[in-house]
Amino acid sequence: DYQHVQVPFEITLWIMLASLAKIGFHLYNKLPSVVPESCLLIFVGLIMGGIIYGLNDKSPPVMDSDIFFLYLLPPIVLDAGYFMPSRPFFENIGTILLYAVVGTIWNVFGIGFSLYGICQVKVFRLQDVSLLHNLLFGSLIAAVDPVAVLAVFEEIHVNEKLHILVFGESLLNDAVTVVLYKLFRSFCEMPTIKTVDIFAGVGKFFVVGLGGVLVGLIFGMTAAFTTRFTKDIRVIEPLFVFLYSYLSYLTAEMFHLSGIKNLLFHFLSIIACAMGMKRYVEANISLKSHTTVKYFMKMWSSVSDTLIFIFLGVSTIGENHEWNWPYICFTVIFCLIWRALGVLVLTFFVNRFHVNTITSKDQFIIAYGGLRGAICFSLVFLLPDFHRKKLFIAATTVVILFTVFIQGMTIRPLVDLLAVKRKRESAPTVGEQIHIRFLDHLLAGIEDISGHWGQYYWKDKLEYFNSKYLQKILLREYDQPKSSIVLLYEKLERKHAIELAEAGQLSHAPSHPSLLYSVFLCSNNDRTVIMDKKLEDTLNPDVLENIQEILARNLYRIRRTGPAYNRHTLPGETEPVEHAKEILILQHKSP
Amino acid sequence: DYQHVQVPFEITLWIMLASLAKIGFHLYNKLPSVVPESCLLIFVGLIMGGIIYGLNDKSPPVMDSDIFFLYLLPPIVLDAGYFMPSRPFFENIGTILLYAVVGTIWNVFGIGFSLYGICQVKVFRLQDVSLLHNLLFGSLIAAVDPVAVLAVFEEIHVNEKLHILVFGESLLNDAVTVVLYKLFRSFCEMPTIKTVDIFAGVGKFFVVGLGGVLVGLIFGMTAAFTTRFTKDIRVIEPLFVFLYSYLSYLTAEMFHLSGIKNLLFHFLSIIACAMGMKRYVEANISLKSHTTVKYFMKMWSSVSDTLIFIFLGVSTIGENHEWNWPYICFTVIFCLIWRALGVLVLTFFVNRFHVNTITSKDQFIIAYGGLRGAICFSLVFLLPDFHRKKLFIAATTVVILFTVFIQGMTIRPLVDLLAVKRKRESAPTVGEQIHIRFLDHLLAGIEDISGHWGQYYWKDKLEYFNSKYLQKILLREYDQPKSSIVLLYEKLERKHAIELAEAGQLSHAPSHPSLLYSVFLCSNNDRTVIMDKKLEDTLNPDVLENIQEILARNLYRIRRTGPAYNRHTLPGETEPVEHAKEILILQHKSP
Repeated sequence: DYQHVQVPFEITLWIMLASLAKIGFHLYNKLPSVVPESCLLIFVGLIMGGIIYGLNDKSPPVMDSDIFFLYLLPPIVLDAGYFMPSRPFFENIGTILLYAVVGTIWNVFGIGFSLYGICQVKVFRLQDVSLLHNLLFGSLIAAVDPVAVLAVFEEIHVNEKLHILVFGESLLNDAVTVVLYKLFRSFCEMPTIKTVDIFAGVGKFFVVGLGGVLVGLIFGMTAAFTTRFTKDIRVIEPLFVFLYSYLSYLTAEMFHLSGIKNLLFHFLSIIACAMGMKRYVEANISLKSHTTVKYFMKMWSSVSDTLIFIFLGVSTIGENHEWNWPYICFTVIFCLIWRALGVLVLTFFVNRFHVNTITSKDQFIIAYGGLRGAICFSLVFLLPDFHRKKLFIAATTVVILFTVFIQGMTIRPLVDLLAVKRKRESAPTVGEQIHIRFLDHLLAGIEDISGHWGQYYWKDKLEYFNSKYLQKILLREYDQPKSSIVLLYEKLERKHAIELAEAGQLSHAPSHPSLLYSVFLCSNNDRTVIMDKKLEDTLNPDVLENIQEILARNLYRIRRTGPAYNRHTLPGETEPVEHAKEILILQHKSP
Repeated sequence: DYQHVQVPFEITLWIMLASLAKIGFHLYNKLPSVVPESCLLIFVGLIMGGIIYGLNDKSPPVMDSDIFFLYLLPPIVLDAGYFMPSRPFFENIGTILLYAVVGTIWNVFGIGFSLYGICQVKVFRLQDVSLLHNLLFGSLIAAVDPVAVLAVFEEIHVNEKLHILVFGESLLNDAVTVVLYKLFRSFCEMPTIKTVDIFAGVGKFFVVGLGGVLVGLIFGMTAAFTTRFTKDIRVIEPLFVFLYSYLSYLTAEMFHLSGIKNLLFHFLSIIACAMGMKRYVEANISLKSHTTVKYFMKMWSSVSDTLIFIFLGVSTIGENHEWNWPYICFTVIFCLIWRALGVLVLTFFVNRFHVNTITSKDQFIIAYGGLRGAICFSLVFLLPDFHRKKLFIAATTVVILFTVFIQGMTIRPLVDLLAVKRKRESAPTVGEQIHIRFLDHLLAGIEDISGHWGQYYWKDKLEYFNSKYLQKILLREYDQPKSSIVLLYEKLERKHAIELAEAGQLSHAPSHPSLLYSVFLCSNNDRTVIMDKKLEDTLNPDVLENIQEILARNLYRIRRTGPAYNRHTLPGETEPVEHAKEILILQHKSP
């Protein structure tokens, strides 16, 4: 009775295959240091596709664009948004937008027109490909893919600014691509083109961008507000983070511009939702819930992108391709050239207005890091049927494979060779953080006095609005707003305590309960060994005399050790605080 | 463009509704202590159903049995299996099986024949309901529902033995019900019945039970084996637990006996998988992964059963019912009477063979706790069409509502009134645990010498097989097999450390890093206050002199504080151990 369980069974098997491929890839330590994971996964996909093709004697199914956009992409974007380092992102937002909007338009028209030029050469037999079709192709091939970029850039550890520039561009440029793609597609189908249509298209672009951010923020705030009331049912807290972000994504999907998915709206809404809710949700939910949220987000996005690369490989095999050497080769070349030129020109302008300039090495990596991926692939399959569609599919496939394999594998050696500034290995120290915050306040003050409404001014106003209104509404325990330094201190203390316990150090300090355990351990078989060792290490003679008193004081801890069975609560959820309090009281009572 | 996102959007909305209903329910503290959550959820479902009915003017959709069996039931059974207290389960397995098999057969025939008797009374106008149809109805209404039982019994905290008896019975009796149901259904459709068919049905029952356990164990062991190799990609560890359990469930679904789902196979396979993999997976995966697994399992099962109860309410509204007072009333009465009689008779035999007898209070609660739920409901909708199907649906709905509402709400006061032995609030102490283990070894020795192959003998042999072969294959770090007492000690130490840190106690013990933090905190604004307090509390005068040395020793900790951004790893995953080691080395070096 296979029919009956087919859907969940095949989904489970695909995820299993993806996870096992990942494990296998990491089993040999040398492999991940040479080849990016994405290449290997596409390779696994190619093999799978070959097997399916060989067995069925027909093309394996291509990745359904609905599955891709509704189920595989959201976790990746959510993860990117939730863990997005907000400071570098907002500091470089201008540059990112310039690359994403102007750079993409540049690429689309550059590639489109020059490919049209190639089509005019009679020897290549491509005269039937019109200018509009070439521009349409240019618009879909110009989109740098966030999934591919993330997969490669996370492994090469370039400096944070470079990372956020490439990644931010790849997230936002899809929007421009899709708007242009939609424009050209409707032009292909329309008999005449009016100027009004063009302006309407451009206008929609901005409305949709702002709309996406707004929808995302509304859902994010609602999520934060909901987690205020989950104190008694910790177990479903993580759910809300996922539910609201996904709802924001789906809402964006529902209200999209007619015809084709508007990725800008999606991306912006889910990123705004994630970034908006993060700080409030983190404060409201329990520590374990938060671990689960983080872990599950990583897990999900990791599986999603593994699946995307494998499907990319699988879909490549088949009879969808029409081969034309000149067209395909020139596509690859033009993609490289126009991107390089675009980055050079745009950076020239950016550097004139910034103190922190983008070095020529960084520019090279930005240009070289323009990897294409699954989004191009989905778009090319969504093209309206016309007689050269298979040529476009072939060219897109080659560009994707070229960028992911050749560029993806050589970028690491190039980064080493050029000695591009790497990400600092250690995070900023507490002292540094304090100084950064101090400087922020100082600059906000200067901007306020000088009447310049710069980023620090707005940041300060936002922070004020946040502490004055938002926190009161969205946070559960507003009565004690902790400074982030105090929170950091608590976090470090907790981490430190765990480390000490794991290293067996806790018993070196004469903290009383661990003493008790050593006594209890002594009732075990290796009595003398442990006892002698522990006692020698830990006890001063006078402490030894007090052992009976200590036993009496800490007996509470021994009474409870294991969890009771209950389906709606997790073991030991509320206990720790109670325990510690009781110990506290006991220890304070005793002289 | 709603059509496009309908499926994921509606699923998300239903889950959201369920979660919000849960939150709302817990907002008022009085409510959960009087009414079981399941009643409230059914009530919410009834209202939702009423709204849908009112708006569309047609019956709201009934719960699809595929959705129920493929997506809603597995998380609940997985959770039950993973967190099943294995000791009481295996100690009472005989009693559970007796209740589940003999008790259910008793109920089915009792209810079926007595309802047939009622049908013979001419005044009731039920003569057209044949004996076979009555038996069929009896078989579906006899199934005690694990979801409903869990929902109520987890809130009333009866003693562990009573809990496991009712819950274990509810899990396993579905199998018997379904076999009988299938038997009667095929009899309804068959013209003649052969004796061979009956024996074949009974034979299959045992084959299928063993098959389920085997399939589950195979998947469980594979899962444990897979987690041996996930050291470098901690992020996808939790995935394997869910993937393999779900695969075991789906495999069971694929190979089920013809026609109707065989729940025994499903339940046994997923429970065996969960119980089999638990100890090995726990040892292999990281602490955070394990938190995620536990949390997500709880979350998932919690949402699933919320959804089930809400759907139950929604499906109740509509025009599927045919009302016949005598039949429906007598169904409720017979369900109560035959269950009570069955428990009395069976317990009489059980008590003759056991030292730990089941008291008459316990018997009453077992009989009274026979709640019906969603499984009956799904089965009645799967009935072949015949002219009295709507009467059966109405009777089933009434029985479910009666048991969940009346019995579910009165069982807690009854437990209080009868003073039924409750679950001990505290888990066994370390000392108790050591003694229990000691007694187990002793009894295994006695059984071995006397040549009696009892449970202790087999447990001992299994433990030997486990440590000799299974652990070597399935565990990653087999070179250091830790005794469970040592593991418990480590766990307690870790928990204790966190508690101390949370209570601010860590700084009372002169452990050095926290000292350092207090010094760092002093660079913050409330310099004098914190410094004085900390120093007075923690430092002996001679320690104060060494402050510079301590700073030098622990400086490592300060270098790293925040996480770096990476999509495939979680912040601070491998660091703690390194940190602690370095501190360890530094501290050992210094005199």
